[in-house]
Amino acid sequence: MVRPDWIAVDWGTTRLRVWAMQGSEVLENRASDKGMGSLTPEGFEPALLDLVEDWLGDQPVPVIACGMVGARTGWVEAEYRPTPCTPLDPLRATRPQVEDTRLEVHILPGLSQSDPPDVMRGEETQIAGFLAQNPDFEGTLCLPGTHCKWVVVSNGEVESFHTFMTGEIYALLSRQSVLRLTIGDAVPDREEFAEAAGQARENAELMPSALFPLRAAALLEGLTPEQGAGRLSGLLVGSELAAARPLWEDRQVVIIGAPELSALYAHSLTQAGADAHEMDGGALVLAGLTAAASALTRTE
Amino acid sequence: MVRPDWIAVDWGTTRLRVWAMQGSEVLENRASDKGMGSLTPEGFEPALLDLVEDWLGDQPVPVIACGMVGARTGWVEAEYRPTPCTPLDPLRATRPQVEDTRLEVHILPGLSQSDPPDVMRGEETQIAGFLAQNPDFEGTLCLPGTHCKWVVVSNGEVESFHTFMTGEIYALLSRQSVLRLTIGDAVPDREEFAEAAGQARENAELMPSALFPLRAAALLEGLTPEQGAGRLSGLLVGSELAAARPLWEDRQVVIIGAPELSALYAHSLTQAGADAHEMDGGALVLAGLTAAASALTRTE
Repeated sequence: MVRPDWIAVDWGTTRLRVWAMQGSEVLENRASDKGMGSLTPEGFEPALLDLVEDWLGDQPVPVIACGMVGARTGWVEAEYRPTPCTPLDPLRATRPQVEDTRLEVHILPGLSQSDPPDVMRGEETQIAGFLAQNPDFEGTLCLPGTHCKWVVVSNGEVESFHTFMTGEIYALLSRQSVLRLTIGDAVPDREEFAEAAGQARENAELMPSALFPLRAAALLEGLTPEQGAGRLSGLLVGSELAAARPLWEDRQVVIIGAPELSALYAHSLTQAGADAHEMDGGALVLAGLTAAASALTRTE
Repeated sequence: MVRPDWIAVDWGTTRLRVWAMQGSEVLENRASDKGMGSLTPEGFEPALLDLVEDWLGDQPVPVIACGMVGARTGWVEAEYRPTPCTPLDPLRATRPQVEDTRLEVHILPGLSQSDPPDVMRGEETQIAGFLAQNPDFEGTLCLPGTHCKWVVVSNGEVESFHTFMTGEIYALLSRQSVLRLTIGDAVPDREEFAEAAGQARENAELMPSALFPLRAAALLEGLTPEQGAGRLSGLLVGSELAAARPLWEDRQVVIIGAPELSALYAHSLTQAGADAHEMDGGALVLAGLTAAASALTRTE
């Protein structure tokens, strides 16, 4: 019988992941597709109980959650802490009301920035996990994904951050625009990616003019779906790198994300002469949630 | 009883428009929503007959059609004529097989370009209509819409052209990305448009980094949907203008399209010091189809 002394929860838009924890040790972990995007406010507690109820005994158990669960359209809105600041402050977590009082739910705050306006929910916990393991890091973290976050870290704090919608734009253009006829779900060709990324990184004006030519090249020259996917991905990532240049030039960059996508960013950054390294981000959320749990325990 | 001596057809992705013509005089016009996008190849002749059958007598009638009806996924694939060339050559029209032999259907060719790869179907007929009325024009035509075409015209020929997916990207981002929560179908605010368009036009790196901040500004600062729509539209049009600069700087530009959208392009081009004028494009397709009919008649 699994009896955690706390429960870690990573609750994003599309996925819910939970871990039964004893200190920093994982007793068991589970996941479901009951992400924030598919739930109304009253659906969160049942979705959580579906996964954790048999972990609960007679006593209340702290549940530390991060991610879009704290969005305005989530369970309850958790606050945004304005940068510059440390990535985590579990004492400012938001406590949703629950029917099953064995659940002591803490939803961690996100981060905000006023100029340019930006917000994050969930990545701050990954950053805290990274800093727990690399407390002296000075440089930039790049977290590719649906929304790629570039995070400037100094003295253990998030100095500033910038979000790019590159992954979401790729998905929309490849599957729903006229380019769906050319690309669809094809796997990006690496060489086409590298060439297009380099071109768009060095010439920010290229990307908007080079999108429709992907369709035309398929019609006129037999560009394959994989080549089209590689070029589209390269154009979008390259134009992101052009815009993000002050964040990676002459700085140490650590790329944290899914291995395939991280490799694409790493390749183009290295090609541009950046000091960029990849790191598997899989364990960082849990490390951040563990740091939050430990801070809460210390103060209780 | 209407008995045209030819029938003009503008058959795009979403609309079918037909005119009963006597020479260059319109006897009657009709439209339906049976665009190319909603039809399989065998559906085109019935969709056309739905609109024109009572215009047909005993004799065959020439039907001159332009647009996506000639795409690979249309009625039959019409050829692309490689630029530089005149916008129209009705003798190279494609003749689909018909069951009702009173229909003598001619689908006009589109235009293609090899470097950068590009294609058009339908706009070439508008350009022909424009040149029928302005035979000495030297400069650039800008045709905003779902896909904006920039067309360099010289000596009565299309020298080159460039397609931007700006309208389609605006629709996807405002209605289907995370920005739908901020923008949706809101009408773009003109002042926000002008400011964002100017910024993105002068700094091509701005656009990719300025999209997610629209969502954040709505969350943090109460940016309204109309302001968000104006800024998004301005960022996208401005980055198009940055990329298209060689096509409009120090050239005469005529903007042909729907009045509201044309006005946005005209405003930002004029602000940048360009010699840009708007023109209502509503009648140009018919003028181009009429020029094609007249050329066909002369040679028959």
